[in-house]
Amino acid sequence: MKTAVYRKSHFNAAHRLHNPDWDEVTNKLVFGKCNNPNFHGHNYELIVKVTGEIDAETGYVIDLSVLKKIVDNHIIHKLDHKNLNLEVPEFGILNPTAENIAKVIWHILRPQINHTLDLTIILYETERNYVEYPA
Amino acid sequence: MKTAVYRKSHFNAAHRLHNPDWDEVTNKLVFGKCNNPNFHGHNYELIVKVTGEIDAETGYVIDLSVLKKIVDNHIIHKLDHKNLNLEVPEFGILNPTAENIAKVIWHILRPQINHTLDLTIILYETERNYVEYPA
Amino acid sequence: MKTAVYRKSHFNAAHRLHNPDWDEVTNKLVFGKCNNPNFHGHNYELIVKVTGEIDAETGYVIDLSVLKKIVDNHIIHKLDHKNLNLEVPEFGILNPTAENIAKVIWHILRPQINHTLDLTIILYETERNYVEYPA
Amino acid sequence: MKTAVYRKSHFNAAHRLHNPDWDEVTNKLVFGKCNNPNFHGHNYELIVKVTGEIDAETGYVIDLSVLKKIVDNHIIHKLDHKNLNLEVPEFGILNPTAENIAKVIWHILRPQINHTLDLTIILYETERNYVEYPA
Amino acid sequence: MKTAVYRKSHFNAAHRLHNPDWDEVTNKLVFGKCNNPNFHGHNYELIVKVTGEIDAETGYVIDLSVLKKIVDNHIIHKLDHKNLNLEVPEFGILNPTAENIAKVIWHILRPQINHTLDLTIILYETERNYVEYPA
Amino acid sequence: MKTAVYRKSHFNAAHRLHNPDWDEVTNKLVFGKCNNPNFHGHNYELIVKVTGEIDAETGYVIDLSVLKKIVDNHIIHKLDHKNLNLEVPEFGILNPTAENIAKVIWHILRPQINHTLDLTIILYETERNYVEYPA
Repeated sequence: MKTAVYRKSHFNAAHRLHNPDWDEVTNKLVFGKCNNPNFHGHNYELIVKVTGEIDAETGYVIDLSVLKKIVDNHIIHKLDHKNLNLEVPEFGILNPTAENIAKVIWHILRPQINHTLDLTIILYETERNYVEYPA
Repeated sequence: MKTAVYRKSHFNAAHRLHNPDWDEVTNKLVFGKCNNPNFHGHNYELIVKVTGEIDAETGYVIDLSVLKKIVDNHIIHKLDHKNLNLEVPEFGILNPTAENIAKVIWHILRPQINHTLDLTIILYETERNYVEYPA
Repeated sequence: MKTAVYRKSHFNAAHRLHNPDWDEVTNKLVFGKCNNPNFHGHNYELIVKVTGEIDAETGYVIDLSVLKKIVDNHIIHKLDHKNLNLEVPEFGILNPTAENIAKVIWHILRPQINHTLDLTIILYETERNYVEYPA
Repeated sequence: MKTAVYRKSHFNAAHRLHNPDWDEVTNKLVFGKCNNPNFHGHNYELIVKVTGEIDAETGYVIDLSVLKKIVDNHIIHKLDHKNLNLEVPEFGILNPTAENIAKVIWHILRPQINHTLDLTIILYETERNYVEYPA
Repeated sequence: MKTAVYRKSHFNAAHRLHNPDWDEVTNKLVFGKCNNPNFHGHNYELIVKVTGEIDAETGYVIDLSVLKKIVDNHIIHKLDHKNLNLEVPEFGILNPTAENIAKVIWHILRPQINHTLDLTIILYETERNYVEYPA
Repeated sequence: MKTAVYRKSHFNAAHRLHNPDWDEVTNKLVFGKCNNPNFHGHNYELIVKVTGEIDAETGYVIDLSVLKKIVDNHIIHKLDHKNLNLEVPEFGILNPTAENIAKVIWHILRPQINHTLDLTIILYETERNYVEYPA
C-alpha cells in the first residue's frame, strides 16, 4: 500500500480573469468582478501531494525539505508577489483561473519529481474556494 | 485528467438523533446526549466538490458563482436556521446524522449539476467530526 | 507585569432569540431567522482567559488542567447538547444571545477562580461572529 | 462592564507598496517584492470590533446583521476585487500598507456606528501578518 | 455508494529521526535538525477515516463515540505525552517519521474496526506537513 | 492613536515540566503527563505584537520583514527543534511552561525592538492552550 505526503506553501499574486477572444461585454458577463482590468489578488495556499512507497532506510516517501526546495525554486520564486497575467508567461494567453494555475503548477513540478511517485496539486484561492489537479 | 473544484458554505441548524422504531431507553443508549428531545445544534460546514474537465474558453470546471447560487437556493435556504427534524421533510423519518444529511444534500444537488460532472459532498458537523458522500 | 492564559473548549446547543415582552411581529422583525420557534443551533467555541502573576514554583498562572475541570464541571456539563431556552434556567427570561451567554458564563465561573486572578470570556457563536466579556 | 462583539468579513484586492516621494531604488530597497509595479494581491480578512453595553431588550451590543450591512455597504463594496492604488481614492497618495488600510477603514466606519460604542479594526493581510487599529 | 466518516484527535510527543545503521554524519546529513539527539516534538493531529455503508437503523457508518473510545484506548493513551523513540516499542528500530507513525497507527487500529469497513489514517506533524496511509 | 502589528512564526521543541526543588512524587502530582522524564513536545505558534505610531513615510509601525529577521535570529534559531530543558540555558532552572517561555522570549526581544514601541508575546502551546505576556 502506498503513502501520500503533503507539503503546504503559499504565495500572493495579482490576476484578472479574461478571455482575449471575447469582447468586453462577454468577459464582464462571464467573469464579473474577477474581470476588473486593474487586477485584484489573492493569498494562494498551495498543497503539493506526493504519493509512493515509504523508503525503508529513511522512513520517507520523499524528504519534505527536498520537496520544499523544489516548490520554492520552481513555483514560489516564479509566482510570489507577481502579476500572473503580465509576468508569468504561461498565462500570456491561458486564463489564470485556480483550475489553470493548478494545472500549470503540476506541469512544472512533474519533471522535478521522481517518476515512480504520483503528484497532485491542491490550490486554495480563498478559504472557501479551492481546486485539485488531477482529480 | 480531470480537475476538482470545491466550494465551502455553512448553515446553522438544530437536530435530534432518534429512531422512532425504538423505545426511549434504546434511543438514549445508542444516541446518548444527541437524543435530547429538546434538540441541540451545530454550525455545519458544507463543502461541495465538483469534478470534470476544464472548459477551454472559461478555464472553469464549473463557474463557482453559479455553483454558489445552486447551493444557496437548494440547500442553504432549505436548511439554515432550521430544525432538521421538524422542518425538513426529508428527515421526517430519516435520522439526521451527518451521514444522512450529506446523502440528502447529494440527492438534492445531483439533478442541478451537469451529468458530465461528478459530485461529492463533504459535511463538517463539528471541527472534529465530518463525513464524505460518496466515498 | 501580568500574564494571561487561555483555554479553549466547545459545546453544541440549540437556542432561539426571542423577547417574551414583544409580539411575534416585532420578534420576527428584530431577530429574523434567529427567532425560529423550532430552534436552530451552534457549535460554540468558548475561550476562558485568566490573568495574573506567574507562580514562582509551578511556572503557572493557573494549572490549565484545574481550569479545564472547572470549565467542564460548571459550563460544558451544563450547556453541551442542551436547548438553552428550555433547559438552562438562566435563559428562562434572558435572551440567549452570544453576549448574554458570555455574561452568564462569566458570572458562573467568577466565584470558582481565585479573586486575585482576572477573568474574561470569549465566545464564538460562528467562525465569523464572536463576543468578549468584559471588554 | 462592557462587552465587545466581533464580525469577520473578507475582500480580495491588488495593491503595491510605494512612496511617490522616493526614487525607484529607495522604494525597491524599502518595500522589496511588495513594490512590484505590476501589483500583487491578498485575501484580506477584516474583523470589526464594537464595544459597549448590552441592550436590555435585545441582548445585543449591536445587531450583527445591521453591522454586516454597514461593513458590506461602506467597506466590502468599496474594496473587494479592486486595485487599492488605482481605484480607491484614499490610497491615491497614502501607501496601502495593512496599517493604513485599517486606519482608513476605521475612519470610514466611525461615523456609521453610534458614538456610545467603541470601534476597533483588525485586518489580516496574510494568515501570518495582521494589524489592529487603534491599539 | 459508500460514505466516509472522519474523527479528529490529537496527541503531543517527542521524537528524533535517526537510522541506527548509519553513522552520525550520515544521520545529520539526511535528517538535519530532526536528528537532534536530545529530541524535539510536535502536536500531532490524527484523523481516522472509516468508509462503509450507512446503517439503516442508526444512520451511522460507525458510531463516532465508539470510534473515539477505540482511538483513545489504542492510540492516544499509547502515544500522548510520550517519547516515541524511547517509550513506544514499535519505534525501537523503526524511524518515527510521520509516514511510519501513520502506518503503525493503521496496523494497530485495523483489527479493532469491523473488516467490512475501510480504514485510512491522516496525520498532521505540523500545520504544513501531513501524510495519509494508505493512499 | 496607536496601531499594533502582529507577526506569526512557529517552532517545534521538546520539553518537560519539572521543579528540581520538589521530589518526584510532588512533580508527578502537579505536572502529571507533562512531567515525563523522557520529554514530550509541541508545535509552538509564536505571535509577536508590536505597538506604536505609523511611520508617515513607510506606512509601517515596523517593517515586518525586519521584525521577521529579528524573531528568526534571536528566537527561532535558538528554540526550533531543540530540547528546551537541556539545550536552552534560560530553562536550566526555570520551568519551561508556556508562561515562562513567553516571558523569556519577551526579555530576549525587548532590547531588539525600538524602545518607543510596545512589545507583547502570544504563544500557543497547542491549538487550545495559549498565553500572552504582558497582559
